[in-house]
Amino acid sequence: YREEQERREKLFVVYQVVLKWFVALLIGIGTGFAAIFINISVENFAGWKFALTFAIIQKSYFAGFLVYILFNLALAFSSVYIITQFAPAAAGSGIPEIKGYLNGVDIHGILLLRTLFGKIFGSIGSVGGGLALGKEGPLVHTGACIASLLGQGGSTKYHLSSRWLQVFNNDRDRRDLVTCGCAAGVAAAFRAPVGGVLFALEEVTSWWRSHLMWRVFFTSAVVAVVVRTAMGWCKSGKCGHFGAGGFIIWDISDGQEDYSFAELLPMAVIGVIGGLLGALFNQLTLYITYWRRNYLHKKGMRVKIIEVCLVSVITSAISFGLPLLTKCSPCPESEASSGIECPNPPGVYGNYVNFKCHNEKEYNDLATIFFNTQDDAIRNLFSAKTIREFSAQSLLTFLVMFYTLAVVTFGTAVPAGQFVPGIMIGSTYGRLVGMFVVKFYKKMNIEEGTYALLGAASFLGGSMRMTVSLCVIMVEITNNLKFLPLIMLVLLISKAVGDVFNEGLYEEQARLRGIPLLESRPKYQMRNMMAKEACGYRKVVSLPRVIKVGDLVSILRSNEHNGFPVIDHTRSGETLVSGLMLRSHLLVLLQSKIDFQHSPLPSDSKGGSFLVRHTNSEFVKPVSTKGMSLDDIHLSDDDLEMYIDLAPFLNPSPYIVPEDMSLTKVYNLFRQLGLRHVFVVPRPSHIIGLITRKDLLIEDSGDSATVELQSTSSSGA
Amino acid sequence: YREEQERREKLFVVYQVVLKWFVALLIGIGTGFAAIFINISVENFAGWKFALTFAIIQKSYFAGFLVYILFNLALAFSSVYIITQFAPAAAGSGIPEIKGYLNGVDIHGILLLRTLFGKIFGSIGSVGGGLALGKEGPLVHTGACIASLLGQGGSTKYHLSSRWLQVFNNDRDRRDLVTCGCAAGVAAAFRAPVGGVLFALEEVTSWWRSHLMWRVFFTSAVVAVVVRTAMGWCKSGKCGHFGAGGFIIWDISDGQEDYSFAELLPMAVIGVIGGLLGALFNQLTLYITYWRRNYLHKKGMRVKIIEVCLVSVITSAISFGLPLLTKCSPCPESEASSGIECPNPPGVYGNYVNFKCHNEKEYNDLATIFFNTQDDAIRNLFSAKTIREFSAQSLLTFLVMFYTLAVVTFGTAVPAGQFVPGIMIGSTYGRLVGMFVVKFYKKMNIEEGTYALLGAASFLGGSMRMTVSLCVIMVEITNNLKFLPLIMLVLLISKAVGDVFNEGLYEEQARLRGIPLLESRPKYQMRNMMAKEACGYRKVVSLPRVIKVGDLVSILRSNEHNGFPVIDHTRSGETLVSGLMLRSHLLVLLQSKIDFQHSPLPSDSKGGSFLVRHTNSEFVKPVSTKGMSLDDIHLSDDDLEMYIDLAPFLNPSPYIVPEDMSLTKVYNLFRQLGLRHVFVVPRPSHIIGLITRKDLLIEDSGDSATVELQSTSSSGA
Repeated sequence: YREEQERREKLFVVYQVVLKWFVALLIGIGTGFAAIFINISVENFAGWKFALTFAIIQKSYFAGFLVYILFNLALAFSSVYIITQFAPAAAGSGIPEIKGYLNGVDIHGILLLRTLFGKIFGSIGSVGGGLALGKEGPLVHTGACIASLLGQGGSTKYHLSSRWLQVFNNDRDRRDLVTCGCAAGVAAAFRAPVGGVLFALEEVTSWWRSHLMWRVFFTSAVVAVVVRTAMGWCKSGKCGHFGAGGFIIWDISDGQEDYSFAELLPMAVIGVIGGLLGALFNQLTLYITYWRRNYLHKKGMRVKIIEVCLVSVITSAISFGLPLLTKCSPCPESEASSGIECPNPPGVYGNYVNFKCHNEKEYNDLATIFFNTQDDAIRNLFSAKTIREFSAQSLLTFLVMFYTLAVVTFGTAVPAGQFVPGIMIGSTYGRLVGMFVVKFYKKMNIEEGTYALLGAASFLGGSMRMTVSLCVIMVEITNNLKFLPLIMLVLLISKAVGDVFNEGLYEEQARLRGIPLLESRPKYQMRNMMAKEACGYRKVVSLPRVIKVGDLVSILRSNEHNGFPVIDHTRSGETLVSGLMLRSHLLVLLQSKIDFQHSPLPSDSKGGSFLVRHTNSEFVKPVSTKGMSLDDIHLSDDDLEMYIDLAPFLNPSPYIVPEDMSLTKVYNLFRQLGLRHVFVVPRPSHIIGLITRKDLLIEDSGDSATVELQSTSSSGA
Repeated sequence: YREEQERREKLFVVYQVVLKWFVALLIGIGTGFAAIFINISVENFAGWKFALTFAIIQKSYFAGFLVYILFNLALAFSSVYIITQFAPAAAGSGIPEIKGYLNGVDIHGILLLRTLFGKIFGSIGSVGGGLALGKEGPLVHTGACIASLLGQGGSTKYHLSSRWLQVFNNDRDRRDLVTCGCAAGVAAAFRAPVGGVLFALEEVTSWWRSHLMWRVFFTSAVVAVVVRTAMGWCKSGKCGHFGAGGFIIWDISDGQEDYSFAELLPMAVIGVIGGLLGALFNQLTLYITYWRRNYLHKKGMRVKIIEVCLVSVITSAISFGLPLLTKCSPCPESEASSGIECPNPPGVYGNYVNFKCHNEKEYNDLATIFFNTQDDAIRNLFSAKTIREFSAQSLLTFLVMFYTLAVVTFGTAVPAGQFVPGIMIGSTYGRLVGMFVVKFYKKMNIEEGTYALLGAASFLGGSMRMTVSLCVIMVEITNNLKFLPLIMLVLLISKAVGDVFNEGLYEEQARLRGIPLLESRPKYQMRNMMAKEACGYRKVVSLPRVIKVGDLVSILRSNEHNGFPVIDHTRSGETLVSGLMLRSHLLVLLQSKIDFQHSPLPSDSKGGSFLVRHTNSEFVKPVSTKGMSLDDIHLSDDDLEMYIDLAPFLNPSPYIVPEDMSLTKVYNLFRQLGLRHVFVVPRPSHIIGLITRKDLLIEDSGDSATVELQSTSSSGA
């Protein structure tokens, strides 16, 4: 019998492994398709918009202006309407929330099905509507939602869940899936599979096991293949305006071949500027978000909608109006031979946009970056062989205006990523510095596009404070390895400068939203604190093993704790800690009422019957639903007089620390293992044994496996 | 007073941080220079060798053969002599040992100064001597040695230590430094800074904190800059034969532009072959190393030296003799226009080596890969636009011979990396598959060099089982991002295939050497085991708080434990666990004799006097020395009658687990925190408090910092 049980367990393990990989595959495919859908939609909306506007301004600039504003307004309105009405959790970039979730905090609503749809359709509207925000952050959130929904086998609310997927019934598996989803999101957003893995590793997860890396890597590879296939399919022209200018890869293979050591100084300057502007960005957005949360958004949904519409109109007016006021420049003659057409209609991929130029051979440099999709603008800023395309004045104007717009747009109730705006800002001042370098050093092998790339890296480094993942992402999106050491240098400087002033964008935002992120490093003063001080000398609310239902309800009502120690009495009358009971599990028990009993004595049900009454999955906290509240449970007076035996449901051995352990150690335990509760116990009176490394090296001989196979019944979750 | 103390502490923290970064800088520079030194030496030795041999074979092939063999033999002998006489720990690749060290195992001698020199000079000899091994693994070990030596401020044995560097006096800081050193080693070996970071992350460390990544990244960037500077300096011709063919970057930018879906099948085949051959390689080397350890190497040093010399002679004979037996092929005519010269003298960088060809316009394809440095051979295998350079017969011969040589060479007493041999083997069968694809699909845009690259990735994946880091390293050494998804695909397949048969090369070797590596995943049967079972019901040897020196010595002599629980008695007579005492600390106490006292009562020294008698650094286990043994300590009979109070020296709060905790949980605790000892205690009788996430979010307000600043005295280590 035992052999059979063992075989069945092994089969189950194989099933689980296969299923995990299968779900990783599905996550990759799903995220890939979501990214393609968003990209095609955005490109098509933007394409229609620019084509229409350009057709109209041939006759009247004013009519074109109106159409442009209205088109953008309609898209932005659709986005904010979806968000405020259906999916409030889909506003913003979502990365701070995902980070919080993977750090161990539960935030309601961030992984719902409606949030997924809100993210997808909302970001189509907001990005297509030309706001100063990107679709990359939302795509990461989208990937995480897809992963979480697949992990629980569909949305429980809409009864789409399938049973066979419900093996992912513990927190750890769920978090693993969401990590995969994040990586898939980045991989899809930037077509940067390795960058996706590193992003998931460096930025979002707080604990990491190396065999997870392997699965995350697989997911990213699947995304890369899916996206590539779709791009190939679109090449035949079936995707409308989605063509060469579609998915991010801002190729700078034409950039400069080499760099001299004299150039390291201006590059360091770019790093410093990036650190300063990035830190300023974090600080400004922090203030504005704070103000928004506390004053503006308290006034209701209508204010949010009006706000977004206002921002949309201002953005449209600036991006249309400013180029109108700029004088056109004559096309450079030397470039004509290099295959770059000089006057280009706006909205079409390419440099040198002709916009309100009277002469045939003139172009408007501000329109080239402003009156364009952001992807194309960045491509133009990164472009090589186009020295003197932009005037310093235009770039400076653009920098100031776009920076302001990005700060104002941040925190409105639409899905908003900060990657692409950051790259826009960074590449603008990078190109500015590059122009001065070209003037100063007077060498022709310096390309302004290279400096634009470094500027982009520096601003992102100064704002988001990522290092390795950002470095790899920048390399992957520009498809150029030559500048890797330069990007590293610039990132190091900008992150160091930024760290002087404040924390990274995501950390600041998470703190503002009350998400208690545990940093990777314990605070210094923790060294001198003991574990018992951290509990704050609060009274611990503990439960007896068998408890009256009425008492339980009143205990649950009287506090907000999420975990309760359960104390049992041995036959000799001494107390003994039995384990930890979670509030959510108690609520499940109270709701089902199956385990109520009349006697206050411990029930002698031995595992078996317990398993019949409850499937394991009932206790799984559904991540993508709102969770249960005590008010949802209705108990009759008879019920309240009954008893309940908690023994089969509790976690029998939570991690414990002695009372005088240094808080630094407790912190490391908490953070490295992703815990939620730790018991502080008195210093033990004696020791049963000492486990060393060698004790944990059990061979796969199979002998030791069969030694103990009972005592597995009481694993409530 | 308190404020001043606090200020001083803060200053110390700043000092520590600055020092950590400074040491990271030094590690980068040191490893960079070591790599350059090794590379220049190897290239020069190899250059002289081939130049000399080629000059002689113009007259007599037999004399050339003799000179070639003797030259190689001399180099190999110098290598094995250095290793066996001075630095036995420097044999092999060193990566399993470093992995073990970072996993928490102490292995004597791996981080000594003599090991460092043995690694550097030994690998110059072994690689320059043309053995079938690489210099990349040893470089990783070199980086780790440099890091560890810098961290303890020089070698303690040779009195080179400086005091101001001794702030790195805990295990964690040391391990962080060694992690930096590993990354620097990889970055220097392959000129792959990002790959280095990922290698350190994926392959060697078992626990990881994200702020360490930042410092590792910095170290890698420094290495990249140092190496680049040196390469620039060498371009002026000051480095002898070290020139274009020096540092690894096998540029394949001329490779094929695109790939069709039909090609995915042969690529998958490459992945499967890689998995099979890689797993076979692991298994064969495992058997041979096992046999060597248990039979051959027990016979003393002379056997080791003879073995290496024998291998060297065989290798030389094969690499000289086999090309001699091969027929020359006529130079292809079409290539003449593409700038590739057809008959090249051997040893010179380039394809189409002329070796014993009678005709002017002929070349020897086997000599092109065999009678050449490995770097150049790989460059030739990766090269594009050279379809039909190699005949299938030559490649197959080379594959079989080189595979056998690599297996035989592995485990001899010389520093030996498996990266480059792995790439050689992989690219050979990759190119073979590529040749069949070219024949079968009959498209001209397929390049055999691309298949060679994929083959190399597949073999490394099948043998070492790395994923992300290997992927990035392959991309960085070939300077080409286009094939990233293909490399990912091939790696996924080869790792999966290999995992069916055995573990990765480093894990297998570590296990064979008795290094108890804890894998990232606990064994499945641990789920059903409890903590107390793991201690194996052994009797715990515990010490009283005040112990007679004689008793202590006999306890230490009677067992091999490294940690002892210390039990104290309260006034009411109850026992209480005071903490953990390490054997190494006890030895320090016994040696210094300062703390011996006459009375068996606890001394009332309150911290202060303790700190005067011992500086903290005395207790630091010197990683790079051999450690102390009980036999080194001489105690008089009077000494043995005295007492010692252990209270000030013990670790007052090691991590504890209740006796019935699931072993899976214990395993995770152990592994994630890098522990050495865990106390198993009885289930607690009551709970003092519960720590949750919110309790650990202490603000930097400064109020809480001053609450508790006493009670820090007893932190022995």
